[in-house]
Amino acid sequence: MKENKPVLHTVLTPSLLPLYNASDTIVVIIDVLRATSTIATALYNGAKYIIPVDSVAKCIELGQMPDTVTAGERDGRVAEGLQHGNSPLEYTRDFIENKILALTTTNGTHLLSLALNQDAGTIITGSFPNLSAVVNYLTEQNRDVLLACAAWKGRINLEDTLFAGAIVNALQNRFEINCDASRMAQMLYGEAGGNLFEFLRTREASHYRRLSGYGLEEDIRYCLSVDVASILPVYREGKLIAE
Amino acid sequence: MKENKPVLHTVLTPSLLPLYNASDTIVVIIDVLRATSTIATALYNGAKYIIPVDSVAKCIELGQMPDTVTAGERDGRVAEGLQHGNSPLEYTRDFIENKILALTTTNGTHLLSLALNQDAGTIITGSFPNLSAVVNYLTEQNRDVLLACAAWKGRINLEDTLFAGAIVNALQNRFEINCDASRMAQMLYGEAGGNLFEFLRTREASHYRRLSGYGLEEDIRYCLSVDVASILPVYREGKLIAE
Repeated sequence: MKENKPVLHTVLTPSLLPLYNASDTIVVIIDVLRATSTIATALYNGAKYIIPVDSVAKCIELGQMPDTVTAGERDGRVAEGLQHGNSPLEYTRDFIENKILALTTTNGTHLLSLALNQDAGTIITGSFPNLSAVVNYLTEQNRDVLLACAAWKGRINLEDTLFAGAIVNALQNRFEINCDASRMAQMLYGEAGGNLFEFLRTREASHYRRLSGYGLEEDIRYCLSVDVASILPVYREGKLIAE
Repeated sequence: MKENKPVLHTVLTPSLLPLYNASDTIVVIIDVLRATSTIATALYNGAKYIIPVDSVAKCIELGQMPDTVTAGERDGRVAEGLQHGNSPLEYTRDFIENKILALTTTNGTHLLSLALNQDAGTIITGSFPNLSAVVNYLTEQNRDVLLACAAWKGRINLEDTLFAGAIVNALQNRFEINCDASRMAQMLYGEAGGNLFEFLRTREASHYRRLSGYGLEEDIRYCLSVDVASILPVYREGKLIAE
């Protein structure tokens, strides 16, 4: 029987991306704690667009433009010289509406440049706050998909894997999934059983430990909340904009 | 409280190995279907030693030595020019006792050379047929451990992850494990609930599908059998020998 479904793969860490074909493919960038949750939230609350950049210096430079907020973190903390951090809770409508956000993060922006180098067909960003928007878009498009986890300095992490699992779970009947990483992600998401926060806490997820050590439990809870910022960030000519 | 336990990490695919320190560390090479299961079985059944090599040509050349069997696979099938394949069931005592086995495989030998390049402290091989031998050795040694999965052409696979999970499960109280890949492996092993074969079959593991497509279900069942070849293969000066 000929399979006519589009193909879905999960890439659990950026260094594995070159093993997969990204052209003519939708690449979903996943950095649950906290870059892609922040991106969805800022756009949902009316930011004009987001400029993801790979260096703090470039971010500071972009801050010279009018109506531009600079933000970013290194190793989970506000990077020196930037105005704001990577907490989605900072980006309320009052603060971010009609502004431009220049953002640099430890892992997410690195993965984005890898995807660009590989000539990705379309790049979008995914997080629990915009889960359904991502699922609906992938369903409508009916094209091949790579779920690309930003991980932590190359090492696989649980929270990005769980988000990939949520997508696999929603799309499993619409895509051909001959990919152990996708199946593993789906099983782990199933095991979390709807309580992602408790799952990360009790399983001693490494980034949960890192962020909760900084007193960021409220951030983590928000980043695990489904559909609270229901919007689709799409990358176009250097900018993430709301579709 | 100071942690004095040794550290354990799981590396789900060879390309992530450079992210970890391998020196002064025991690296466990894991290639469940089927290289490390075959290695344990051949040594358990009395092979003098095994020479892992990275090319078919080199394997054929070693076959000129007396009492040497050449074996290996590429993409799951016997490689052209070699006498035997990578099925552990071929290596009965009648056949392999007192012989030397020159072995080349798709993924396992590649991972071994990476570990050597990284100056690994000690290299051993692990598989379900020698699970307890590995657990006992790691317990006694009380040194840092990397569980290194051979994967499939760089892509993460379920069966190697499950074996890593079995080790993590056995050693979790003796090691410091701040490693999401280890926790994920352990959860998946827990979910398999003692029936690894059914787990791989029903979860549509990609390598299960590949091998069962070649009629190798009996091989897969053997490779998932715990402690049927209870021996510890250790790498020393180009050879895998029984400790």
